[in-house]
Amino acid sequence: MKKGLRLGIDLGGTSVKMALVDERGRVVDGIRVETSGKPRKLVRSLKIAAVSLLKGRRPLGTGVGVAGDVDPVRGVVRFSPNLHWKNVPIKALMSAGFPKPLFVDNDATAAAWGAYHVDLKGRSKNFVLLTLGTGVGGGLVLDGKLYRGATGTAGELGHVCVDPDGPLCGCGSTGCLEAFVGNRHLVRWAMEEYARRGRRAHEGLTPKDLNHFARRGDPVAKAVWKRMGRALGTGVAGFLNIFNPDTVLLTGGVAAAAPHFMPSLRREVSVRAFATPRRAASILVSPQNNDLGVIGAALLVP
Amino acid sequence: MKKGLRLGIDLGGTSVKMALVDERGRVVDGIRVETSGKPRKLVRSLKIAAVSLLKGRRPLGTGVGVAGDVDPVRGVVRFSPNLHWKNVPIKALMSAGFPKPLFVDNDATAAAWGAYHVDLKGRSKNFVLLTLGTGVGGGLVLDGKLYRGATGTAGELGHVCVDPDGPLCGCGSTGCLEAFVGNRHLVRWAMEEYARRGRRAHEGLTPKDLNHFARRGDPVAKAVWKRMGRALGTGVAGFLNIFNPDTVLLTGGVAAAAPHFMPSLRREVSVRAFATPRRAASILVSPQNNDLGVIGAALLVP
Repeated sequence: MKKGLRLGIDLGGTSVKMALVDERGRVVDGIRVETSGKPRKLVRSLKIAAVSLLKGRRPLGTGVGVAGDVDPVRGVVRFSPNLHWKNVPIKALMSAGFPKPLFVDNDATAAAWGAYHVDLKGRSKNFVLLTLGTGVGGGLVLDGKLYRGATGTAGELGHVCVDPDGPLCGCGSTGCLEAFVGNRHLVRWAMEEYARRGRRAHEGLTPKDLNHFARRGDPVAKAVWKRMGRALGTGVAGFLNIFNPDTVLLTGGVAAAAPHFMPSLRREVSVRAFATPRRAASILVSPQNNDLGVIGAALLVP
Repeated sequence: MKKGLRLGIDLGGTSVKMALVDERGRVVDGIRVETSGKPRKLVRSLKIAAVSLLKGRRPLGTGVGVAGDVDPVRGVVRFSPNLHWKNVPIKALMSAGFPKPLFVDNDATAAAWGAYHVDLKGRSKNFVLLTLGTGVGGGLVLDGKLYRGATGTAGELGHVCVDPDGPLCGCGSTGCLEAFVGNRHLVRWAMEEYARRGRRAHEGLTPKDLNHFARRGDPVAKAVWKRMGRALGTGVAGFLNIFNPDTVLLTGGVAAAAPHFMPSLRREVSVRAFATPRRAASILVSPQNNDLGVIGAALLVP
């Protein structure tokens, strides 16, 4: 990767991160912008933020990661439920006021590219990233390159069915990996499980609480993580058989609860994945690195 | 692809196919050898067959597809349940008597490469092949190249779990796609379903019979194909979300029953796959082409 700074922008649902990132994925300088208003208005705020961040520095280009269905070739956000956008030609809207060339991609794809450089130091050829948050996203680096598929939407690993009779997912399907592992679903199941056992969970229960409770030995919290690990293990086993990767990285807020879900994840993988891909893959857990998206976006600039 | 003939060898469990194949994947000449005996003995038979097939012609190289877990870099068959082989250094054993260079790969991977050239004429960039037979295999052409993964076993698409409570699979897991769609499993379920409905299926029932019965309106046979389509649709929907391919090709003996299973497959895909990858992909069914494996093996020679 060419030496020099890149401007990265991570367009999320509630805020935008902007950072100057060097060729090794180190954040040199950063700024946060609130997401509000329509695309044009947002782009105007971004321009102002870019000027104050750049302070006259001239990066090699700009990379933008957007949460949603992105066409990286045309630079269009087809659909972003988080931003409430539909068919927004973001690349065209950003044609002035940002260092060129400009690249646009899905945020999880960008995060995979960031993790590939920062967490793995590029020492992987076939890499599967799973981001565990409200949604469950995925990104793929195959044969050393980002894999985007025919129209830029590859890697929706959270929307692989792990149980057709499972809970309804936000995407309209049932039993998606996300419907077991996504934060909201995890918490909902915990609330139900507390109710089933005649206990009441407090309002606003979070995965962090569940991690805390499990550490203190609470059987319900422990059962919740066990079930989550089983579903995640079923998914990961499939990814091992499909991709034969050298590395699977689990990242996001719930990664902190790894001690509670990894045993059942590994058990599932040992039953469901073939021996050769199982031996070839390191399954790693890394705590949430909120900057992976913005770093990866910046590194989209070659 | 360079102009000229290549020698292809498809090493299956019951017989070996050998063919001279041109750069466009056309079989110019072919021969069949019975599979028997240990690796060394088999290689001796292959040498004799090659001499009689080549008749002095000098192909550009040899490609070998083997049913099983293959290390394409070292040219070793790690494990082949069909051939009863374990750690057989097939490339080393074939170092004399065959046109060089020599390439070894998994048979479904080779078949995907064959289908990519023959069925799709190379007009695809991201292609998922599913071979529906006794086993359910898969092969991947991603960004225009064969994808093999870290240790050569990528594309085991038949061993992705589509229902954790599903039937036991030959691989030791439960609810694999193969456990719903593989010939043996399909027939077993049909027999059980006939029994449940107080009818007796004849001995030696085959998927071909079930296709025939369904065409005549038999409700059990129709239900069997519907269930098969549902499981296959769940798998295919996942592959669309994962790979965002331009083409999914279903091939193998049961492809002939497509009219019976495709409606439920498509229904499942329309519920479970995202709109963009669903629109981007053609899901094609092609009748069994027994030569795809040997053609693809030959075309492993660049």
